[in-house]
Amino acid sequence: MNAEIITIGDEILTGKVINTNAAFLSQELDKLGITVVRITTVSDTSHSILSSLEEASSRADLVITTGGLGPTTDDVTKYSMAEYFHSKMSINPEVLEQIKIFIRARGGNVNDKNKGQAMLPENCEVLPNRSGTAQGMWFSKNNVNYVALPGVPYEMSEIFLNELAPRLKERYILPFIHHEMVLTSGISESAMAMQIGAWEAGLPSNIRLAYLPSPGILRLRLSGTDNNPEKLTDDMQTALRSLEAIIGSYIFGYNEERLEEITGDLLRHKGYTLALAESCTGGKISELITSVPGASDYFIGSIIAYANEIKTDQLGVSPDTLRTYGAVSREVAHEMATGVLKRLGSDYSIAVTGIAGPAGGTDRKPVGTTWIAVASGKRITSRIYHFGEHRGRNIQKASIAALFMLKKELEDNL
Amino acid sequence: MNAEIITIGDEILTGKVINTNAAFLSQELDKLGITVVRITTVSDTSHSILSSLEEASSRADLVITTGGLGPTTDDVTKYSMAEYFHSKMSINPEVLEQIKIFIRARGGNVNDKNKGQAMLPENCEVLPNRSGTAQGMWFSKNNVNYVALPGVPYEMSEIFLNELAPRLKERYILPFIHHEMVLTSGISESAMAMQIGAWEAGLPSNIRLAYLPSPGILRLRLSGTDNNPEKLTDDMQTALRSLEAIIGSYIFGYNEERLEEITGDLLRHKGYTLALAESCTGGKISELITSVPGASDYFIGSIIAYANEIKTDQLGVSPDTLRTYGAVSREVAHEMATGVLKRLGSDYSIAVTGIAGPAGGTDRKPVGTTWIAVASGKRITSRIYHFGEHRGRNIQKASIAALFMLKKELEDNL
Repeated sequence: MNAEIITIGDEILTGKVINTNAAFLSQELDKLGITVVRITTVSDTSHSILSSLEEASSRADLVITTGGLGPTTDDVTKYSMAEYFHSKMSINPEVLEQIKIFIRARGGNVNDKNKGQAMLPENCEVLPNRSGTAQGMWFSKNNVNYVALPGVPYEMSEIFLNELAPRLKERYILPFIHHEMVLTSGISESAMAMQIGAWEAGLPSNIRLAYLPSPGILRLRLSGTDNNPEKLTDDMQTALRSLEAIIGSYIFGYNEERLEEITGDLLRHKGYTLALAESCTGGKISELITSVPGASDYFIGSIIAYANEIKTDQLGVSPDTLRTYGAVSREVAHEMATGVLKRLGSDYSIAVTGIAGPAGGTDRKPVGTTWIAVASGKRITSRIYHFGEHRGRNIQKASIAALFMLKKELEDNL
Repeated sequence: MNAEIITIGDEILTGKVINTNAAFLSQELDKLGITVVRITTVSDTSHSILSSLEEASSRADLVITTGGLGPTTDDVTKYSMAEYFHSKMSINPEVLEQIKIFIRARGGNVNDKNKGQAMLPENCEVLPNRSGTAQGMWFSKNNVNYVALPGVPYEMSEIFLNELAPRLKERYILPFIHHEMVLTSGISESAMAMQIGAWEAGLPSNIRLAYLPSPGILRLRLSGTDNNPEKLTDDMQTALRSLEAIIGSYIFGYNEERLEEITGDLLRHKGYTLALAESCTGGKISELITSVPGASDYFIGSIIAYANEIKTDQLGVSPDTLRTYGAVSREVAHEMATGVLKRLGSDYSIAVTGIAGPAGGTDRKPVGTTWIAVASGKRITSRIYHFGEHRGRNIQKASIAALFMLKKELEDNL
């Protein structure tokens, strides 16, 4: 069961708008077990729309378009559809009534533009839009089904979820499909490929692996299809367990989990509080932690000690230690971590000191050198990292590494 | 001059990743005066890649692909390219040397996967990747040029800007096109449209306006084309000056400028230091400021006072003030701003206290209510803002508003 998505709109071709509609539709179709084989973006012209419909129909069982259904002259999708399906256009009286109700409920007057939205190809099945005036449309031709949805994201997604998805489930026999995402950190894509190459080669043919790298995090996605749901679930679990046996120490979570949520939940579960002493990360770790709703349950605050005087005056780092070992050292990371623990009165603390770059590197401590320490009243753990040359990515990688270290400390202590 | 973009990757077809690469490329090609006529996303299979290349070549002068150049077995783009352009694959010795240098500089060991990244189609021109091991490639066939770029966004964009854009300017005769971006904050898209509607209607026909909204910032892009560069520059400047006369107080910068850089430059120029007291923004403002290389010239540090005890103990906010006015109040914002100024010893400070949401709102102080204060030794300015209901956007909007307030204070004082 193959589908294609055609997003119609010059605003995407000129980069003014990111194509989130295609991402939404892909995700939802994938969940239903429908394989999206191609996504195409074309301009708001009848010629491009017609040729893309023609091409898609040769590859897919289902073609979904978004965009070009508005009331203005640059919106030509429904006229192109009428041409493609050899249909007359006429006012749909039921749709017109719904549009009048919709506009009046919002205190508006029904104008000709609004009324024009009820002018639809006669041979389409209407997929009603409860949040706007541009209706969804379902067409069929030569065993291929075609659906046109509006381009406004919330209107598109509401019609998809309320009108289209139920029809797809009813009208197609869909295979069983299953995804599992394994979230790892602390290992590069190529090192991972070396470690799990044999495991990957031994996967059953109905399970595929994909690497999804981003700074500090490498996600591994397992995708399986099978007509037998129980067998697939078993196969996937077997594959996951054997993967965990190889790279378990790099795994921090699964699927949609976020490291800052996982560490937050661990802290909340044990009733621990957290404070941070950030230098090179400059507030990034605090920002990640506080991006999670309810972070005030465990996060009490941070001291961002960018200047050395802040390290000494606010965190109690000894000027001797700074002089002897330098700001980027295990010793300073330790004193920052214990200092913030004491001054802010938290149960746990993280301290990060490093050279984010582009300036500040030396031969012995090049840009990317970073010390991270995690402290509790009972113990302190620290590690040196060598990230890269790019400031933004160094900050991101250090933040992920710091949260991962905290997670391991919390788990050791649970 | 027509271009097509082909993004290769199952992660886009399954909706796991939003296609930001296509948006970046569309925007950059548009700036160069190259029209993107189609964007296609296909899966990581040789068959889909070859058919999409064939189809694009019938419509475009330039075809750019992204993705599928990694070291793992699911990356097949370069082999498909070799097949399409009838080229042998071989190790490129220069590229191999660069990869070795790249890996070793990061403290890694060069493994077979890394070495395999130097295996390239013989008839391509290499577009070097300075941030990774997947090289860009340029091919030509029957008057169409083809470029393959890696899928990792920062590697793709760096190769585009440093290697590809200069070659495009050199090898094509591109129309004269001129863009000016006006950066504003503190005004909504619809309020802006009301204020500048008449100005927009009066623009010459060769100059177009686009609104590019994002949380806290509304960018206005003016795009002009003309065969006469001098006349176009004059027309654009005239349009800009009349726009500034209408909405000058909302403008904080132009083109690629970032508010955190603008405020940083102002601080450096006057030799002032800055410290922050963040509550609801949780480190976001500090993170923005320290994302700028050289921020240590003026930024000394922050106290993130998430819990009320940190506000009293570390910033000297009076428990009476907290009790009487609540944590989200002008009085607390003032005490936070003067407290951090005094404790950290900076010339300027910003304090932010608000309700980011989703919980914590009341009838009198709903989610989104935020007080921001900017203090120097001489004076203190504060303002209340009412943002929306969305936590992430509230944090972003408060951070932008705070930096904009600091900018105005610094300018008043110069």
